[in-house]
Amino acid sequence: MTGTRIRGQIVKAVEDVRTKNPLVGSVTNAVTMNMVANAQLAVGGSAAVVYLQDEGEFLVKASDAFYINVGTLLPLHETSLPPIARSLHETRTPWVLDPVAIGIGEMRNSLLTEFKEYRPDVIRGNASEIIALAGLWGLEGNAGSNVRGVDSTDTVDGARDAAVALARWTGGAVAVSGKEDMVTDGSTIVRSEGGSDMMERITGSGCSLGGVTAVYAAVASPFIAALTATSIYNLAGRRAAQSSNGPGMFQWMFLDELYRATADDVADNPMRMEEAE
Amino acid sequence: MTGTRIRGQIVKAVEDVRTKNPLVGSVTNAVTMNMVANAQLAVGGSAAVVYLQDEGEFLVKASDAFYINVGTLLPLHETSLPPIARSLHETRTPWVLDPVAIGIGEMRNSLLTEFKEYRPDVIRGNASEIIALAGLWGLEGNAGSNVRGVDSTDTVDGARDAAVALARWTGGAVAVSGKEDMVTDGSTIVRSEGGSDMMERITGSGCSLGGVTAVYAAVASPFIAALTATSIYNLAGRRAAQSSNGPGMFQWMFLDELYRATADDVADNPMRMEEAE
Amino acid sequence: MTGTRIRGQIVKAVEDVRTKNPLVGSVTNAVTMNMVANAQLAVGGSAAVVYLQDEGEFLVKASDAFYINVGTLLPLHETSLPPIARSLHETRTPWVLDPVAIGIGEMRNSLLTEFKEYRPDVIRGNASEIIALAGLWGLEGNAGSNVRGVDSTDTVDGARDAAVALARWTGGAVAVSGKEDMVTDGSTIVRSEGGSDMMERITGSGCSLGGVTAVYAAVASPFIAALTATSIYNLAGRRAAQSSNGPGMFQWMFLDELYRATADDVADNPMRMEEAE
Repeated sequence: MTGTRIRGQIVKAVEDVRTKNPLVGSVTNAVTMNMVANAQLAVGGSAAVVYLQDEGEFLVKASDAFYINVGTLLPLHETSLPPIARSLHETRTPWVLDPVAIGIGEMRNSLLTEFKEYRPDVIRGNASEIIALAGLWGLEGNAGSNVRGVDSTDTVDGARDAAVALARWTGGAVAVSGKEDMVTDGSTIVRSEGGSDMMERITGSGCSLGGVTAVYAAVASPFIAALTATSIYNLAGRRAAQSSNGPGMFQWMFLDELYRATADDVADNPMRMEEAE
Repeated sequence: MTGTRIRGQIVKAVEDVRTKNPLVGSVTNAVTMNMVANAQLAVGGSAAVVYLQDEGEFLVKASDAFYINVGTLLPLHETSLPPIARSLHETRTPWVLDPVAIGIGEMRNSLLTEFKEYRPDVIRGNASEIIALAGLWGLEGNAGSNVRGVDSTDTVDGARDAAVALARWTGGAVAVSGKEDMVTDGSTIVRSEGGSDMMERITGSGCSLGGVTAVYAAVASPFIAALTATSIYNLAGRRAAQSSNGPGMFQWMFLDELYRATADDVADNPMRMEEAE
Repeated sequence: MTGTRIRGQIVKAVEDVRTKNPLVGSVTNAVTMNMVANAQLAVGGSAAVVYLQDEGEFLVKASDAFYINVGTLLPLHETSLPPIARSLHETRTPWVLDPVAIGIGEMRNSLLTEFKEYRPDVIRGNASEIIALAGLWGLEGNAGSNVRGVDSTDTVDGARDAAVALARWTGGAVAVSGKEDMVTDGSTIVRSEGGSDMMERITGSGCSLGGVTAVYAAVASPFIAALTATSIYNLAGRRAAQSSNGPGMFQWMFLDELYRATADDVADNPMRMEEAE
């Protein structure tokens, strides 16, 4: 795809979400679920969060897209998440996986291993999480990721091969968050600029990016959804940083900028493209 | 009751809460519990949230009023919520029920069915939730509600008969949230104006209205409590929308307006009254 | 220690956290976990929250300090928290205990009783919670605390003997939050001034103070950590109150002030010292 064509599809994704108000169900992290839902609403989506298996399966059917984030697992997730993910796969409901804190605990790795066959349409994580997931799925050696709690100790560039391998496996897209973000569908690699250092000084910037990606996945291809979400985050983060004095006000001004960004502004956020070999 | 008499009671409710700082216990939705507690504090109440049955029963005794919101159910709620609701009923502690997302999952419907006999003093929901609850309780046909996740697809006017029927069953009050809100005690119907479109672009505006209703139910009748909470929400929502640029800042300016509203301002928020036939 | 020496160590603690970005794991309260994590990030730490036992034990090893808050207990906490606390004790990982709402429910008291032998490095609570914990641990009579939900009905001065007794038992420090805060290591008692009435009109000011104390405990002694956290809270609270109009905006301006405070400003926040007899 040419840059012009991609920009046209980003414009359409931003506008379609605002017109259609897609419903996105989530099973997600307790720390940031409020931020996730508010960000989904700010861009024009609708949000619902559940824990129980039957509610998740019901919500899969009702939703236009879905978001699964394994951040703060409870015992029930061991049995509720696999059938929800299977149901997403079987009903071809677009879904986004956020492999938060992969490597911490047995249940998390077991769940993430099971998700391999349900091929999430978009995988979003920091560099260490993406490298670790590609390793866990046996797709790209055991690149030896360095997840420290929820933080990345790898660079986005270092996750390039892992991201490409994951995208080729799922047939969808992968977004790697960092100083400069990377989005790939396994053949094209896009680097998206912007954002702010403030995004590392608040909780939920990564999770809510995943949740917003799911909103766009309701109306666009995985690749365009990941790119649109990454672009609007980089745009809104840069703008919010200019008008805030610290991380507290930043996060709410950031939501305001998500709400106010025009489709053209989002599409015009700087990006660079290259082809994966 | 005349409008003048109602306004006088609203003034008293706003002031009594600020003087007495009533304690409101809650079992509530994980997504919005922070917003619920902050709104309860902003109007002058005190807040405590629990999950476990024995803690809930303890808190019923310690609380001046209680709030139950079935938003994000966990397995433990199946056994913890019924005895808590029974205890509220038996101790005649005023309580507010928020039947969030009624229709999703078996446990939710089973719990909501059990709550019928414990007659919540105030039921608060959007139009679809109120219609669905009246149907579930066999009070007003199965009006065929259209709950979509947590959103309403019915109009407030369409929930009029369901609201009246529920209020007559409980002997308390029902509040229906929407573009224009409706509050009824089964005989008088009040429409309350104000608010802002922004309230649909944030999460927790409905839940926190339920939580704040419980704060007022600690010092006033169910009808006056529902009306006071609805009025202060409409007032604060309108004011916060005037000074904010988006949903992020809106929600915190909204809390500020809850905190700053005078009792007279709340009582003077526009409303229209009619009698139910 | 002289005041000058203490101020020097506070400066060092503030700066070391910003330089070293310590990771603090938490098992904490669902209502305020977002505020806790955001406050930890605002002062320069890194945050991770878990529920499951094996994840907690993993996180103990990965963390520079840990925070346990028993605010909103779930069934799993009955078995997950004791081994996590034991692991903290055995690995000598500095940890902060927040005995929120002590007295509500059996599990809470049972857990808090078990924690006695794991000697938390810092205990932070309001006056009623500190008095109740000293009573539960048999250290200072049963002083008859008056916990009302999560609120204190005792004065900070009334918790003086309980705080000293707890600090002597643990060999660490105790921080009592109130109009004027008290921090003691069992021999020196420091009163710290500042803050704002607004801190009682938001949820999470106490919990997040505990979480931030854990961040400083990663780089300083328990006493200096408690004093640094209390000082930066009093400083930031006073500043945020000056520029806000209500509790909504206050809490985010407060986070901004945590982020912006210089080490010297924190060390210069007013305090008075005395020796415990």
